[in-house]
Amino acid sequence: MDVRAAIATKAGAPLEVTTVQLEGPRDGEVLVEIKATGICHTDEFTLSGADPEGIFPAILGHEGAGVVVEVGKGVTSLKPGDHVIPLYTPECRECEYCLNPKTNLCQKIRSTQGAGLMPDGSSRFSINGEKIFHYMGTSTFANFTVVPEIALAKINPDAPFDKVCYIGCGVTTGIGAVINTAKVEPGANAVVFGLGGIGLNVIQGLRLAGANMIIGVDTNPEKKAWGERFGMTHFVNPKEVEGDMVPYLVDLTGGGADYTFECIGNVNLMRQALECAHKGWGESIIIGVAPAGAEISTRPFQLVTGRTWKGTAFGGARGRTDVPKIVDWYMQGKIEIDPMITHTLSLDEINKGFDLMHSGESIRSVVVY
Amino acid sequence: MDVRAAIATKAGAPLEVTTVQLEGPRDGEVLVEIKATGICHTDEFTLSGADPEGIFPAILGHEGAGVVVEVGKGVTSLKPGDHVIPLYTPECRECEYCLNPKTNLCQKIRSTQGAGLMPDGSSRFSINGEKIFHYMGTSTFANFTVVPEIALAKINPDAPFDKVCYIGCGVTTGIGAVINTAKVEPGANAVVFGLGGIGLNVIQGLRLAGANMIIGVDTNPEKKAWGERFGMTHFVNPKEVEGDMVPYLVDLTGGGADYTFECIGNVNLMRQALECAHKGWGESIIIGVAPAGAEISTRPFQLVTGRTWKGTAFGGARGRTDVPKIVDWYMQGKIEIDPMITHTLSLDEINKGFDLMHSGESIRSVVVY
Repeated sequence: MDVRAAIATKAGAPLEVTTVQLEGPRDGEVLVEIKATGICHTDEFTLSGADPEGIFPAILGHEGAGVVVEVGKGVTSLKPGDHVIPLYTPECRECEYCLNPKTNLCQKIRSTQGAGLMPDGSSRFSINGEKIFHYMGTSTFANFTVVPEIALAKINPDAPFDKVCYIGCGVTTGIGAVINTAKVEPGANAVVFGLGGIGLNVIQGLRLAGANMIIGVDTNPEKKAWGERFGMTHFVNPKEVEGDMVPYLVDLTGGGADYTFECIGNVNLMRQALECAHKGWGESIIIGVAPAGAEISTRPFQLVTGRTWKGTAFGGARGRTDVPKIVDWYMQGKIEIDPMITHTLSLDEINKGFDLMHSGESIRSVVVY
Repeated sequence: MDVRAAIATKAGAPLEVTTVQLEGPRDGEVLVEIKATGICHTDEFTLSGADPEGIFPAILGHEGAGVVVEVGKGVTSLKPGDHVIPLYTPECRECEYCLNPKTNLCQKIRSTQGAGLMPDGSSRFSINGEKIFHYMGTSTFANFTVVPEIALAKINPDAPFDKVCYIGCGVTTGIGAVINTAKVEPGANAVVFGLGGIGLNVIQGLRLAGANMIIGVDTNPEKKAWGERFGMTHFVNPKEVEGDMVPYLVDLTGGGADYTFECIGNVNLMRQALECAHKGWGESIIIGVAPAGAEISTRPFQLVTGRTWKGTAFGGARGRTDVPKIVDWYMQGKIEIDPMITHTLSLDEINKGFDLMHSGESIRSVVVY
């Protein structure tokens, strides 16, 4: 079938919005009509060429929501008409990883997904007979896409697509880092480095978890109001702090934070985040994706004296299980999404979404089909 | 009173065995007759001058066992005749750290202990009127010492001093890292880097915890028999491995170890230990003390994909609570100590103990008074 899509033709070039061909779903696959998709920094990371695993031409996009149109043979958990969020971290519920309660990193289709292909090793997208690669197993920058059944979370059909698409990545990553990875307890003190789309969701996750001090750190003074909107109690602008940030934050938290989160992908901030965690019990969680080859470092004494260094992907969430719950939390008003969706665009305007991201004007731009 | 002691007069010099003067216990302090003391790498670290916080002249030693002789005013939990192990990590049971179940790092007397003094800011040791500093709050290289009540664990009076003194540091550090810090569960796979006095105790801790694969890594082929003696199931000599250790160990463990332990203090091995931990859930615990200024590093991707980097001090043990239990485990035959005490010396021979450590001949040398 013909579908409308934005193709990433090569690193560094704008997306090309055009008509491409999509094959129907094979065994275990599902055809989904995408109704809305967020534009995330990870799409930008790949489009820019910085992602060493980036493949072109590809249809990017991994933060979508839509409706099941057709299911392939063997698909049992979904039927046409179901509302779904595609998952770049699937949940097969039978691999060694899914069966280990300590991780959410289902490996069932890892190799083909990483190679831009469906689990059978082929692509469903093409243009004039030329293959186009999938991206993160989701390719939501197309109004129809084919996704493995294990990579689809079935959600409340009343949920608005143009808002809950954000749960496909940013919301779950931020809130999940707090709840699943750090397991923040009520009364804890926390520091969040970077108040972009992820950082603000970490902040609302901390509010949800009953944290006490919620300190946001950002060089952009406009982020103060944004952070406070979602529960931040203290704002620190590093440009206004004399000297090192670490002693400043240790002081502000009365000895160090119980939990710290790095939401930018800067290895220097990752070190600061670890070192401003409390001696004896502080945990630091890396969420941001660092440039290829960048390394974190610290003195091992920081760990020997009781700090823990962790990371998280997709907020430690098991998508088919946890994403529907987060959609319900949104519908119940336990978490907010609407104010973070600062811009709504048509597919034809998708490159403008990347411009808004670069200029720092948007928290999240969403393409509505 | 006059006591016999080995004084560290300056960095790099042998200890001087002589008679020094010891004042009696003040408020909250206890006079202990030390019956035996182990000689640990940490004593060597300070004696060598590598310890940036080393102070001289001092009476080193932190792995002792003995008998209470006299208690100062206000001491309620101990009386003359009690058998005790001095604790370089005290347990006051009332500071912010003791009241937080996530840490064992009691801070009650941290600053004075670090300065080589008793909690009131003075020293009990002197020679010809010249002050000699305490060390780690214990100074067990003297046949009598004064220790704060909160830094003494009361133990089973039937336990032999020349064996259970080792519980004052090495045994508890190794076994505690497994049980308290990593919380290893039955069936887990583990890699232990360095089969010295700490590493062998990590190995017997893993056996006690019911681990499955217990892999020991050491460049000394003689350590194979030592490791197997305490439960090691696989021995790897890096000199006999072609190429990188990380993929070799990942392969051997079928995807990475559930838990890894660095027991040497080498930052390169700390990195290997982290990176051979299993994607998704592997935890790496730093036990070894690195040289001043040395830093650990890795790509943050290692953490984002689910590995956790931790450290431990005194095996995460709360000394007054946990040390008596470990003594009981020894008395019940649940853990072994005797074969690790390879050399027994008199105080006059104490420098030979350091020589045996340097030459790698000893696992542990113990001075018996």
